[in-house]
Amino acid sequence: MNTDKPPSLTQAARQIVANNKRGVLGTLLPEEGHPYTSMIDFAPLPDGDVIMFLSRLAVHQRHLAADARASLLIAPHIMADDALTRPRITLVGKVELVEDRLSVANLYLEHHPTARQYINFGDFQFYRLRVKKARYIAGFGQMGWMTGNQYRTAN
Amino acid sequence: MNTDKPPSLTQAARQIVANNKRGVLGTLLPEEGHPYTSMIDFAPLPDGDVIMFLSRLAVHQRHLAADARASLLIAPHIMADDALTRPRITLVGKVELVEDRLSVANLYLEHHPTARQYINFGDFQFYRLRVKKARYIAGFGQMGWMTGNQYRTAN
Repeated sequence: MNTDKPPSLTQAARQIVANNKRGVLGTLLPEEGHPYTSMIDFAPLPDGDVIMFLSRLAVHQRHLAADARASLLIAPHIMADDALTRPRITLVGKVELVEDRLSVANLYLEHHPTARQYINFGDFQFYRLRVKKARYIAGFGQMGWMTGNQYRTAN
Repeated sequence: MNTDKPPSLTQAARQIVANNKRGVLGTLLPEEGHPYTSMIDFAPLPDGDVIMFLSRLAVHQRHLAADARASLLIAPHIMADDALTRPRITLVGKVELVEDRLSVANLYLEHHPTARQYINFGDFQFYRLRVKKARYIAGFGQMGWMTGNQYRTAN
């Protein structure tokens, strides 16, 4: 008897976030409100939110300072030939500045050790993406939205 | 004597688009105007615009039907350890429906032969992203915006 159940969509969503550290950030161009996409590194938090470490010199940081709404695509198989049939997730939420750098610096450095070179630079700050909803795509035709609560409470 | 000049930023920008076929699309969530990111396949056109083949069942297609503004990140080294130092480009513009499917179908299929399975499905349509401006990142600290005209006229 096999008692292993396959993970639910929400569990699979949490796993893909927990197991990755690079994604594509969606922000809004100031004034225009036009979507903008850029590559970023992140560190996953135990509750499903993610931490980013952004320079004030980076355009996405300036976009977020003007409008905190963001989206993060995590698609680890993006460059694979069969990427359209592989799992990926889009997180949707708002970013918040993390005032207490020390509370997240070690977690971030565990995932991105080379960031130690600029961890104390004054123009870099930590931001937390608070997930309000998420869309998980398991593969071709298998996908769905989940609320922030469904996402956070997946075990 | 070496007469080879390194490519300009605009030339490098055009090259990275011409040599790739998958990216991350930024769109706007209808009503909310919140940024949204999703993976897509594309085919590059000779003038630097790109063609996408989107299903009406896909959320990004519905977003674009409500607001045609879009962004496309092309980052072929995104999953490499040193991705932050590798070239990538963000295109910014608006999408337009391509009424004449036959004018682009063969070009698209050259880049995405497996799309032949659904090339005649009624819910799939071709869209052209008209590039209004672009931001090219050559590596750490080397980057810049270019106008649509600069991008298009790069030789």
